[in-house]
Amino acid sequence: MSAQFTPDLPEFAGRHIGPSADDVEAMLAAVRHDSLDALVDHALPGAIRTDGPLRVDPAASEAAVVEELRAVARRNQVMTSMIGLGYYGTITPAVIQRNVLENPAWYTAYTPYQPEISQGRLEALLNFQTVVSDLTGLTTSGASLLDEGTAAAEAMTLMRRSSKAAADAVLVVDRHVFPQTLAVMQTRAKPLGLEVVVADLDTVDSADALRAAAGDRAVFGVLVQYPGADGELRDWRALASAAHDAGALVTAAADLLALTLATAPGEWGADVAVGTSQRFGVPMGFGGPHAGYMSVRAGLERSLPGRLVGVSVDTEGAPAYRLALQTREQHIRREKATSNICTAQVLLAVMASMYAVYHGPAGLAAIARRVHGHAGTLVSGLTAGGIDVVTKDFFDTVTVSVPGRADEVLSEAAQRGVNVWRVDADRVSVSVDETTDLRDLEAVWSAFGVAGPSEVTIADLTWSEALVRTSDYLTHPVFSSHHSETSMLRYLRRLSDRDFALDRGMIPLGSCTMKLNATTEMVAVTWPEFADLHPFAPAHQTEGIRDLIGELSDWLCEITGYDAVSLQPNAGSQGEFAGLLAIHAYHAANGQSQRNICLIPASAHGTNAASAVMAGMKVVVVKTAAGGDVDMDDLRAKIDQHRDNLAAIMVTYPSTHGVFEDTITDLCALVHDAGGQVYVDGANLNALVGLARPGKFGADVSHLNLHKTFCIPHGGGGPGVGPVAVRAHLAPHLPNHPLAPEAGPETGVGPISAAPYGSASILPISWAYVRLMGGAGLTRATQVAVLNANYIAARLREHYPVLYSGHDGVVAHECILDLRDLTKRSGVSVDDVAKRLIDYGFHAPTMSFPVAGTLMVEPTESEDRYEIDRFCDAMIAIRHEIAEVESGEVAVVDSMLRNAPHTAKALAGKWEYPYERSAAAFPVGVEAADKYWPPVARIDGAYGDRNLVCSCPPPEAFES
Amino acid sequence: MSAQFTPDLPEFAGRHIGPSADDVEAMLAAVRHDSLDALVDHALPGAIRTDGPLRVDPAASEAAVVEELRAVARRNQVMTSMIGLGYYGTITPAVIQRNVLENPAWYTAYTPYQPEISQGRLEALLNFQTVVSDLTGLTTSGASLLDEGTAAAEAMTLMRRSSKAAADAVLVVDRHVFPQTLAVMQTRAKPLGLEVVVADLDTVDSADALRAAAGDRAVFGVLVQYPGADGELRDWRALASAAHDAGALVTAAADLLALTLATAPGEWGADVAVGTSQRFGVPMGFGGPHAGYMSVRAGLERSLPGRLVGVSVDTEGAPAYRLALQTREQHIRREKATSNICTAQVLLAVMASMYAVYHGPAGLAAIARRVHGHAGTLVSGLTAGGIDVVTKDFFDTVTVSVPGRADEVLSEAAQRGVNVWRVDADRVSVSVDETTDLRDLEAVWSAFGVAGPSEVTIADLTWSEALVRTSDYLTHPVFSSHHSETSMLRYLRRLSDRDFALDRGMIPLGSCTMKLNATTEMVAVTWPEFADLHPFAPAHQTEGIRDLIGELSDWLCEITGYDAVSLQPNAGSQGEFAGLLAIHAYHAANGQSQRNICLIPASAHGTNAASAVMAGMKVVVVKTAAGGDVDMDDLRAKIDQHRDNLAAIMVTYPSTHGVFEDTITDLCALVHDAGGQVYVDGANLNALVGLARPGKFGADVSHLNLHKTFCIPHGGGGPGVGPVAVRAHLAPHLPNHPLAPEAGPETGVGPISAAPYGSASILPISWAYVRLMGGAGLTRATQVAVLNANYIAARLREHYPVLYSGHDGVVAHECILDLRDLTKRSGVSVDDVAKRLIDYGFHAPTMSFPVAGTLMVEPTESEDRYEIDRFCDAMIAIRHEIAEVESGEVAVVDSMLRNAPHTAKALAGKWEYPYERSAAAFPVGVEAADKYWPPVARIDGAYGDRNLVCSCPPPEAFES
Repeated sequence: MSAQFTPDLPEFAGRHIGPSADDVEAMLAAVRHDSLDALVDHALPGAIRTDGPLRVDPAASEAAVVEELRAVARRNQVMTSMIGLGYYGTITPAVIQRNVLENPAWYTAYTPYQPEISQGRLEALLNFQTVVSDLTGLTTSGASLLDEGTAAAEAMTLMRRSSKAAADAVLVVDRHVFPQTLAVMQTRAKPLGLEVVVADLDTVDSADALRAAAGDRAVFGVLVQYPGADGELRDWRALASAAHDAGALVTAAADLLALTLATAPGEWGADVAVGTSQRFGVPMGFGGPHAGYMSVRAGLERSLPGRLVGVSVDTEGAPAYRLALQTREQHIRREKATSNICTAQVLLAVMASMYAVYHGPAGLAAIARRVHGHAGTLVSGLTAGGIDVVTKDFFDTVTVSVPGRADEVLSEAAQRGVNVWRVDADRVSVSVDETTDLRDLEAVWSAFGVAGPSEVTIADLTWSEALVRTSDYLTHPVFSSHHSETSMLRYLRRLSDRDFALDRGMIPLGSCTMKLNATTEMVAVTWPEFADLHPFAPAHQTEGIRDLIGELSDWLCEITGYDAVSLQPNAGSQGEFAGLLAIHAYHAANGQSQRNICLIPASAHGTNAASAVMAGMKVVVVKTAAGGDVDMDDLRAKIDQHRDNLAAIMVTYPSTHGVFEDTITDLCALVHDAGGQVYVDGANLNALVGLARPGKFGADVSHLNLHKTFCIPHGGGGPGVGPVAVRAHLAPHLPNHPLAPEAGPETGVGPISAAPYGSASILPISWAYVRLMGGAGLTRATQVAVLNANYIAARLREHYPVLYSGHDGVVAHECILDLRDLTKRSGVSVDDVAKRLIDYGFHAPTMSFPVAGTLMVEPTESEDRYEIDRFCDAMIAIRHEIAEVESGEVAVVDSMLRNAPHTAKALAGKWEYPYERSAAAFPVGVEAADKYWPPVARIDGAYGDRNLVCSCPPPEAFES
Repeated sequence: MSAQFTPDLPEFAGRHIGPSADDVEAMLAAVRHDSLDALVDHALPGAIRTDGPLRVDPAASEAAVVEELRAVARRNQVMTSMIGLGYYGTITPAVIQRNVLENPAWYTAYTPYQPEISQGRLEALLNFQTVVSDLTGLTTSGASLLDEGTAAAEAMTLMRRSSKAAADAVLVVDRHVFPQTLAVMQTRAKPLGLEVVVADLDTVDSADALRAAAGDRAVFGVLVQYPGADGELRDWRALASAAHDAGALVTAAADLLALTLATAPGEWGADVAVGTSQRFGVPMGFGGPHAGYMSVRAGLERSLPGRLVGVSVDTEGAPAYRLALQTREQHIRREKATSNICTAQVLLAVMASMYAVYHGPAGLAAIARRVHGHAGTLVSGLTAGGIDVVTKDFFDTVTVSVPGRADEVLSEAAQRGVNVWRVDADRVSVSVDETTDLRDLEAVWSAFGVAGPSEVTIADLTWSEALVRTSDYLTHPVFSSHHSETSMLRYLRRLSDRDFALDRGMIPLGSCTMKLNATTEMVAVTWPEFADLHPFAPAHQTEGIRDLIGELSDWLCEITGYDAVSLQPNAGSQGEFAGLLAIHAYHAANGQSQRNICLIPASAHGTNAASAVMAGMKVVVVKTAAGGDVDMDDLRAKIDQHRDNLAAIMVTYPSTHGVFEDTITDLCALVHDAGGQVYVDGANLNALVGLARPGKFGADVSHLNLHKTFCIPHGGGGPGVGPVAVRAHLAPHLPNHPLAPEAGPETGVGPISAAPYGSASILPISWAYVRLMGGAGLTRATQVAVLNANYIAARLREHYPVLYSGHDGVVAHECILDLRDLTKRSGVSVDDVAKRLIDYGFHAPTMSFPVAGTLMVEPTESEDRYEIDRFCDAMIAIRHEIAEVESGEVAVVDSMLRNAPHTAKALAGKWEYPYERSAAAFPVGVEAADKYWPPVARIDGAYGDRNLVCSCPPPEAFES
């Protein structure tokens, strides 16, 4: 009804899609097509086109969608959570919530692969690494992992790689590990042929005892929870020593807050520490996202999975941060990579690091003492009431023995608004956190049927002296400089100002789909009804969010043409892994376990290969034909060669070359005929939504990237969500979860993330996007994404060859600019162009992927014609700069390209370049008043890798 | 209880107050006092000190205060408002809410008196002026006024000043004006001796008819509501012509949204237009704040009250914005000023302007058509049901005749969740707005007992052709460039990056108290339970906010020592006016109406004098003694001279010289003995809270500035809140409101703002501040504010003489640096120093107030030692730069001081200064990577005043 009155009001799609109707007309003329429909008819093979409009609900207005989200939120029941198990109530400082989590300068940034324009979040991540490394007492920490469960799984494989123990050695896990952590490790261990033995390690004090505990097997690694899931803080010195004697490594899954008071794992002999930084100011969010962490002792730093921020220098000799040791990573090493991790949890790691900066060491310790004091009070009350508390040396959690009464206690507690944890029919555990107050303790006492203590006293540390921390931490000045809100606010502003994110300009990264993250999509994330749910809260308390997840799943199925989806994978890499596990399990269920060959085209994302290896498969590469398509002859040959063992093919569609290959249906048929499954990487789904559906054109499984196509912000390098979508025959093999039967099929492959629904708290973003766009809006977005890419190709083709394209030069939603010839003739590299684009106020396109020496440009539908023209103008101006080098007029070392980016500091100093300052800093299209200045000059990455420094450098380092 | 566990956790006061405990110790040593208590004992006269701690609730944590606010919010009942009368439901675009209203870069900025570092909000305000001027069809619009009621009152006095009508001529107001607008005009008219006649102007078509309607009196001005309060859109061409013939001016109080479809007032002959821009995306907020507006025809622009943004040029010849015609303003012209308005409503004007930028002309018209269409549908339904709709040519509001049934209809509507307006026992009016949907209309139909139309059709414009707008508006490109969210986001970022606000660094403005605006204090402002209340909603629906207002009032009484407070004044100037009205009414009630002399010290804020004149008083200036105090001999003489007619004295305490004068108690006694009242301007209350209470040391009335002492952000130049606090004998004379008896005493002076509680929606900010700090925190804040000022005085005294101080050189919460001698010797002016401070990354202190040639520095308690030292270091470095000029080494015109601020553009260009680029741009303490670059060079204000341009310049103007 109300729509009747709004024929010319811009609906949300008009806000999300950049070009206006007039612009679309003009751009269509430039690419010589009559209409968007005509363009995509030309671009996509007819065989794969969908036959009707998307069946999702019609678009609703932003105000209406917020109302709907409020209604969903009301159906979640937020209780005080005292469940623990790695998820705790925490207070997000308001200044951090508003100025990080709700600030587009932080949340719309990309992964800091272009370090010169990412110094702000790189510093924040270095702070994070320093927090983790200081607290765990280990020399080097990574820049975050996905969650505690996957971090433990990564520790398992790291220990395997680093241990010299026999090939059949096992991992021994203490019985007090969090159940979801154990389950994730088991899921990961299985395809790698690793065995996980759960044992009671309390009394292990020799290599022999360890071997015995492992069922008389050699041991490559030991993992303990510290404090244990039962709450007990144990002294693992003897175990660590025993493990080392046995040639095994030791990992502590440790609670960061406890470490402010308890002896650091590195101090009692652990080689590796893993865990989560959730309770450092990041809401539980029904399971995520939060930043998992891993730190390692000296000697293991080059084996760390995931990203690592390190200190290097720029060409002016100033300290500068960048991602270190990238050569280890999956996008470089492909199937030889040590992990398939790509995404980190940058936004959440930034929040956690800022929580530590804001509180400082004394503040964190005070919070920990308060938590411990409350736990002590809880215990006094219970024991005074005659209740048997099993845990002796506790930090924040106690296990309570209530023979036969556990369910009753849970129910009584729930009636008082508190969730506690049912260990089994006879035992309950209760966790205290930063938010706990006396009312909560009273509720718990009352639930146990006791009155509480007659007098409340503050207990001091209750555990043995050997575990009382004596070493300092967070001694770097940054942790004692920003304790007032004013100072914190300015620090956050200063860091964010150093970075370039979508709120400043286009980030035309091919394959990364940096589209609008609309504010309305984001609003629900911080609502308590989503933010404050524990992932293991009773299902009846979480109906709202679970229905939302169900609806989003249905829409994703409709959009992709698949039959079932799991939203558990909290990164694309995890979605890939889950998809391949499903394929493997399917073959096994059909008695075809021998099928272990995974065909991967040469142009694939490196992650594909790394994931295949993790899933226990063997990678066979299929060649690329001259035009950029999969070489069908080679494919046929490889299929023939591996027919009996063919497990799957992994292809990206449209291809990573940015082209809709006509051969996709043939390819699917060939693989199916050979008994293989077809995995279509959903990285490029933004070119398909509403036009073609992988689940209908031949694929069996895809992972999607909600942080690409479905508007979850990249957060500066995470969070991501990588749902896996499958056809019906694979549905029984999707992920599930031991603590949440409703979260997956009973026959599933186990959990691949710690939480049942992965990063649940950000799923409302994608839900809102679909709801705001409706089917027609989503389809138009795809069309305009294709138009924008073709418009760029049309404008730039005469300046830079467009490497691959389909019929009549039509590309998909991105295009590859080939600089190889230019580089050969001029010496100007893609790196030079990328850095020079910074001077022009742009983030570089994707460099050298999928083809070395090229730039891949993806504008997305959200960029308007103004910004796209600005980008094309810059690229053309840069082409003229290259021409001057080509012609010999300018030596490449003297060129603005090679010396880019130019800093303000350089401008103010002695000027030794043969070109003018203004040409360097204010090339065409750059308004001096609005100039983005890179805070550092070009960074020497190799220097930093040779001299690895991965925690905060002292202030003196910055003296010039 | 829970506090027991938190002895060393930083409470909120530790976040609000900048210096840590260690810093306080060190700074005390620097100022040579043993403790904060000792310092303030030294600073404040013992006679005025309070005898005990503040009795406000003990401090609560940030989390607890948010919970308390949620509980308050739940006690407000948010209905669909169809009341109208100048307050409408509106949809704030989420991108604007998050990136303006919730972005410290916008809300912590100061008034743009330093235009070089305020170009972002000046551009936004220029957009606002363009919107108003285009829509009203009048050449020049101001940068916003406080609300529609006060804007109408300002129009009244503007018309009086501009009309040549006889001295006893009257203002004629059409009977269909909003009732609160009429009441505010009447409050303002009375002390000025102006008469307001309400008449039916429908048929007035000649000067004679107008005179007759005015009761046979000459007329200086006419004011009509357009459309009228009854909803009728009337053609006022004949009236305007008649008024002009009679020598009167015409003001239209016009609805901006209606003007997108209806003939502009400037096109039918109005000289002035006033109104509110609330419905352009600013929530109703229980009455405010919103941006009122005024625009005038050519020839009246130099009479506009309030601020006016104009275009000028900088020293590089580039267009640059700044406040124009400041010589008109109260701080310059004092009692000769044309208005006492200081604060504008910048933050809200920015929001409204961005709403227009985001929707563009077509979008705004579409919204207006939708509103009108819904109104038409409403009418169809009512008339179909046999209900008599009185309004014929309506835009969004209709008056409905329901003889004897008005109360019943209201009650029936309320039961359906809708508020409509009771005109009288027989008539109800209903207003439609942007948020209205069919459900709302159905509720209204049902409340009237009708079924609604059988078929819903879209009505086109229903009014006479003469009033159908045909002229274009918002044709400037800015209104058609940012319709996608991505583009809007970047525009907001770009503008905010041009500005310097508290999120970048200290704003040490004496008398302005630029302290922390904590995030937690701000969170409730955007909650629907506060944002979506209509100011005239039934009282029982607004219990939560009214109780909060009551509690805040009680706390303010406790803090100031007064007996009653009114929070209605929505700016300090309005608080002053209200206080003086109370004094005047008190004398009158005692049969002393002749008392009309207001003594004002020479050092007073100019506003004091302007307010006194508005209150019908005559200003007599009291001299300043040599030490900066009030000259007590001159005071005695002036009192003697005016003893019988003495109404009041207005003093600021501590004085505007930043000193606690010992003579304050004597001064109060002398004035009281002569029968006068003592008005203490609360501008400097930040130096008194917890230490001394004006209401107890002799004052009778004060206004406070909640946007100074009580943490409401300055918003870039508004909103402000200026409560008036009085002793019991003045309480019967506080403001009240015709539509809200609960908002003031029955015997009150009438409303001085349009809404009963003024800018109610931001009062939770000050409430939260008091709640978070508690009495002890507030008192410590005052002590540290005094410490910080004394620390600056101690560090800078050897470099710049500190002009005034109390015993042993102790200052209050601010200090005056005297540059007059330096200027004489070197030619370097305070302006040069202020602009040079921009190069150092600082906002200048207050310039030349209260003493020309000086800088007044107020750090507030929120600045930490690091920032204060950085400021002192910069001032000392600048002193060395001045020394080079003094010594003749550098000519002043060649100095970095005179050529400041230096832009990046200048750095990149040909460099013709005798100093190095790096010295200009990166002086000591400035990190190149974090440099704030002014977007323009020094601005030539006089050029702009000579060539007055006050709407958006064409893009070509910016071509270099």
